[in-house]
Amino acid sequence: MQTWFNTDCPLLLSGLRGRVVVLAAFQVLCPNSVAAAVPQAARIYETFEPKDVVVIGLHATFEHHDAFNAAVLKAFIHEYRLKFPIALDHPNPGSPIPHTMDRYKMRGTPSLVLIDRHGLVRKHAFGAVDDLRIGAEIGALTQERGALGAAKRSTAA
Amino acid sequence: MQTWFNTDCPLLLSGLRGRVVVLAAFQVLCPNSVAAAVPQAARIYETFEPKDVVVIGLHATFEHHDAFNAAVLKAFIHEYRLKFPIALDHPNPGSPIPHTMDRYKMRGTPSLVLIDRHGLVRKHAFGAVDDLRIGAEIGALTQERGALGAAKRSTAA
Amino acid sequence: MQTWFNTDCPLLLSGLRGRVVVLAAFQVLCPNSVAAAVPQAARIYETFEPKDVVVIGLHATFEHHDAFNAAVLKAFIHEYRLKFPIALDHPNPGSPIPHTMDRYKMRGTPSLVLIDRHGLVRKHAFGAVDDLRIGAEIGALTQERGALGAAKRSTAA
Amino acid sequence: MQTWFNTDCPLLLSGLRGRVVVLAAFQVLCPNSVAAAVPQAARIYETFEPKDVVVIGLHATFEHHDAFNAAVLKAFIHEYRLKFPIALDHPNPGSPIPHTMDRYKMRGTPSLVLIDRHGLVRKHAFGAVDDLRIGAEIGALTQERGALGAAKRSTAA
Repeated sequence: MQTWFNTDCPLLLSGLRGRVVVLAAFQVLCPNSVAAAVPQAARIYETFEPKDVVVIGLHATFEHHDAFNAAVLKAFIHEYRLKFPIALDHPNPGSPIPHTMDRYKMRGTPSLVLIDRHGLVRKHAFGAVDDLRIGAEIGALTQERGALGAAKRSTAA
Repeated sequence: MQTWFNTDCPLLLSGLRGRVVVLAAFQVLCPNSVAAAVPQAARIYETFEPKDVVVIGLHATFEHHDAFNAAVLKAFIHEYRLKFPIALDHPNPGSPIPHTMDRYKMRGTPSLVLIDRHGLVRKHAFGAVDDLRIGAEIGALTQERGALGAAKRSTAA
Repeated sequence: MQTWFNTDCPLLLSGLRGRVVVLAAFQVLCPNSVAAAVPQAARIYETFEPKDVVVIGLHATFEHHDAFNAAVLKAFIHEYRLKFPIALDHPNPGSPIPHTMDRYKMRGTPSLVLIDRHGLVRKHAFGAVDDLRIGAEIGALTQERGALGAAKRSTAA
Repeated sequence: MQTWFNTDCPLLLSGLRGRVVVLAAFQVLCPNSVAAAVPQAARIYETFEPKDVVVIGLHATFEHHDAFNAAVLKAFIHEYRLKFPIALDHPNPGSPIPHTMDRYKMRGTPSLVLIDRHGLVRKHAFGAVDDLRIGAEIGALTQERGALGAAKRSTAA
């Protein structure tokens, strides 16, 4: 089970086909997450149209498990005035790596995953990412409309 | 009871006479604390000689009480590599304002209190404080040696 | 006549068809130009492939005409280690607004103009521009290949 | 001859006894000067009382001599809205190092020299200087009043 904030219902990637998805993994006590990755995710959320780009925050941690709970994340979201959907990753029984981080083979926080309109992972970054470069990559993915149209047609056929 | 980190024993102001004391109140989920006040406290700790200036961090909160515990503060100190002594303020029964914050009439986080070599409060600031100005004020307080010598003599008499 | 730096020959927009052109107007004594626009132009130059995006700096001024000469701009380019082509805009006889700034109706420095692969002006900004947004816009323009192909065919016909 | 800005008459150190003097050497095309040293000099000017601390800017250069003239410095002061007194250092015949830089043995720009109330050089820094540390050093120098009083009496005797 994941706990979600800023959304009425959990977001499933399968329900986001046709839109570029930015998955931003962070941890509320990780300096690079707080100083760079979370504000960048908020800027991406403000910059792009929701019909083109979906930003999803993922709180995840490899350590300090006893320090985190939903109340900490809720207070963080309140204090930093975050508006985009955020999930609290659930622990993986028998592993220190939480479920979603494991699925996307993330190495730690912050991590950023770009998923194109077809659901394919197109970028996987660990650590701080340059605004100009990530803007360019998202901007380019939003323009891959022709291919998507084709894909949609073939899927519909 | 307060919980202390980065010190073998609790620090009492009465034991710090003769040194300038910088009391930096913060909260781990408060954006201004994390981006400005905590790094500034660390810089003050690095810049001045321990024989002249003592830096004490005070974790305190007016809200989100269910989000905080010693494990959260311990993880924060580890992640931000803080070396100066830090206390977890204890709740005030019957009040949302914790004990030490109440005693110094702090209005929230971040707050900064400067105490001179005689134990007198000389500055009380709420919100971010300019590095140049706080440096100048601490630097000036460290030079008040003559007066301290006089005070010491009269105390010794 | 314009004086050029970092290029063997003057760049003409007509010779850049097929590539996105970023025209960054600046002035070496304008605070926003020096702190924001010039470093951003250098980042754009580093981020994108030359086959996709051409960055051109344009030094231009509405005032302080007696302060500027080619030696000042040459020293600035040397000190800031700029690698992209830069032109010194030439004065407009009878007007304080130099020639190229006038042609693109720029209101001052810094100004940024985006020109698409067909030579059409697609963006015109006065003042500092957000890295994420400009990255997205350039990234999107670089993906307009299909249309360009079509245009090239029709031009070739 | 030096050319001065933001002052009715040239400032002589001998006329500034009794006050701490901050001498900030910069060059308008030097990145560290423009991004760090000049704004810091302006902050020092705003932070301290004129009766305690005098800030003097010194424009000086080892190279690009053909690029600089009084018009460039005047435009820079206007654009950056500098209010503190600034002198244009005069060339040293037979040397690339200008007169005042040579006298204070400065190695380049930015450089910062602190002179105490008695006219003694107390600090000499080349490159960017930390706000907290320089604030502390100036603050400490402003408190050396007792010694100054004694010096004044002996000078007057």
